[in-house]
Amino acid sequence: MISASPHERVVIDLGDRSYDILIGAGLLDNPHAFDGLPPAAEAVIVTNETVGPQYAPRLTATLQTRYRSVHTITLPDGEAHKTLATLNSIFDALLSRGVDRRTTLFALGGGVVGDMVGFAAACYMRGVPYVQLPTTLLAQVDSSVGGKTAVNHPLGKNMIGVFNQPLRVVADLSTLETLPQRELVAGLAEVIKYGPIADEQFLVWVEANLDALLRREASALMYAIKRSCEIKANVVRQDERESGLRAILNFGHTFGHAIEAGLGYGKWLHGEAVGCGMVMAADLSARLGALSPDRGQRLRDLVRRAGLPTVGPALGTARYLELMRLDKKAHAGEIRFVMLDGPGSASVRPAPDALVADVIEANTA
Amino acid sequence: MISASPHERVVIDLGDRSYDILIGAGLLDNPHAFDGLPPAAEAVIVTNETVGPQYAPRLTATLQTRYRSVHTITLPDGEAHKTLATLNSIFDALLSRGVDRRTTLFALGGGVVGDMVGFAAACYMRGVPYVQLPTTLLAQVDSSVGGKTAVNHPLGKNMIGVFNQPLRVVADLSTLETLPQRELVAGLAEVIKYGPIADEQFLVWVEANLDALLRREASALMYAIKRSCEIKANVVRQDERESGLRAILNFGHTFGHAIEAGLGYGKWLHGEAVGCGMVMAADLSARLGALSPDRGQRLRDLVRRAGLPTVGPALGTARYLELMRLDKKAHAGEIRFVMLDGPGSASVRPAPDALVADVIEANTA
Repeated sequence: MISASPHERVVIDLGDRSYDILIGAGLLDNPHAFDGLPPAAEAVIVTNETVGPQYAPRLTATLQTRYRSVHTITLPDGEAHKTLATLNSIFDALLSRGVDRRTTLFALGGGVVGDMVGFAAACYMRGVPYVQLPTTLLAQVDSSVGGKTAVNHPLGKNMIGVFNQPLRVVADLSTLETLPQRELVAGLAEVIKYGPIADEQFLVWVEANLDALLRREASALMYAIKRSCEIKANVVRQDERESGLRAILNFGHTFGHAIEAGLGYGKWLHGEAVGCGMVMAADLSARLGALSPDRGQRLRDLVRRAGLPTVGPALGTARYLELMRLDKKAHAGEIRFVMLDGPGSASVRPAPDALVADVIEANTA
Repeated sequence: MISASPHERVVIDLGDRSYDILIGAGLLDNPHAFDGLPPAAEAVIVTNETVGPQYAPRLTATLQTRYRSVHTITLPDGEAHKTLATLNSIFDALLSRGVDRRTTLFALGGGVVGDMVGFAAACYMRGVPYVQLPTTLLAQVDSSVGGKTAVNHPLGKNMIGVFNQPLRVVADLSTLETLPQRELVAGLAEVIKYGPIADEQFLVWVEANLDALLRREASALMYAIKRSCEIKANVVRQDERESGLRAILNFGHTFGHAIEAGLGYGKWLHGEAVGCGMVMAADLSARLGALSPDRGQRLRDLVRRAGLPTVGPALGTARYLELMRLDKKAHAGEIRFVMLDGPGSASVRPAPDALVADVIEANTA
């Protein structure tokens, strides 16, 4: 498909909703990265005020070779703006420009932009197609893959959204060069996640290559992104709408979402909350006897080495429990967690409140 | 399936999204009308302040035989409240009550309630199932069938929404007994619509039975609802997501939506705007030579006899054209209309602005 710039390709196999993830340096400037997309009169780039000035002009130039007109909509930056109100501002902008149903949206940015554009694409005139162009490590390894879209609600993270697969994911590695270190580290949390839940070998690889990743060595990043996408693709293929298996991708997220909602969205980056949440979930797994304590310690060490927090904020045990009872995996007030069962294996199970409280008390400031 | 109360059943055949429409008097009180729905711990009835006091207690009693808990959420009444803000109030209510993903929503009301609940069900925690319980004629013959959900935007009707099929539609004819005459008449607009676009025989039947329908004779209403649902089911089965054929169900809606948006939502009932819109679209079809003028006159007579408006409000030709250019069927600023081609046949085609302007000038106050 692509004649220029070396790249990797991962296929998400979902029948008539299948699509490709392209990973490579310079793809934003490569018109061939957009070969084969269905015809549309207009392209609308939706980005944020940080990413847009850096990359939207380049993407516009590339897309102008294929679309009659290319608009750009710029959103405020940050998790605090991942709301229904910001979503509505996308609709306002599309309608006031007279954008019709024969349009493709291009989500240019991190996970917040991707989640909102995927949701907006599902709802605008009851559905227009969209392409993900993730510009953060976190979005390249996780949020732009798999079709989960959402906005936050004051009472819970990602509570309002739909499943809506993109037409394609185009991950340009060169966008990581300008990523703030704090965001790179946050993305590593999701990279670290895949080993414990699904691939012991990848966990060993991440442990061995963490320093190269932190130094942004291109070959290490390329492999980490490709392997993360492959693992996620394999899980999503088996359970697109999270009726079972897919929930393991939420390892660390039950505690993590409580941290994000409890502190107010945007205080901690999503990846930071997930990093700490994985340490807490591993501790819970160990207390339930599912995981050997040394494996829990090994994960804690890796999270710490990556520069991620391993101690949660002092929200109070009652507040943690209250927020987690609203988790999407909860049933009738019973909180359920992704537990590690052993090397490269995880499952979703409930845990007694008292034990969860012990974990919170042992792992928060 | 149902052992009590006589009823009709229409099947919407959409593969794994297939479902039944049950039509009969007293179904709200009949637990068997809910046989075979997937298990859920909780039922949440979403209704409005007009319908709720009349029917929510009865539906609650019926559902309590099947669900551990039954909540009710009450929305303000009317098209003016079919907004993203009202949608968000559903999410607020669900989250603040700790409603989890193992829940079924029940939309009890007219088209506004049904469209919003279907949309909310698609988005709450990325999807919970829902059942339609239409209590107006318009919702029973049209809006509760086929899975179109939406809210309005100041710039256009039903601009924000998704396709989301219900688990079942339960149309209790006894709810029509208390329906204001103006709303009954508005519902007749959608009944009248089906003949010209798809079934000449049904048009003849409606012409012959209009007085019985206006008097709410049960057997006439039953047949009109059943036949309307059958015609709609047949169209939706062939084109669920409106890539082509389904758009014919929008006969009269291009002009109608402009009237609704131009006057402000709620001034005219949706069915009133559609009634007038059908007269205008038939006139346009005649001016384009697709329809004989006497058939246009025949439709105008039927709309008038039903008590629906046949003359549009004076928004000004430019404003009509501006609003219609945002119609979901428009392509690159070219407005497209559902045209009548002959007995029981319609298609979607563009029309020159000058001719559309003539139609507006000839058919508005």
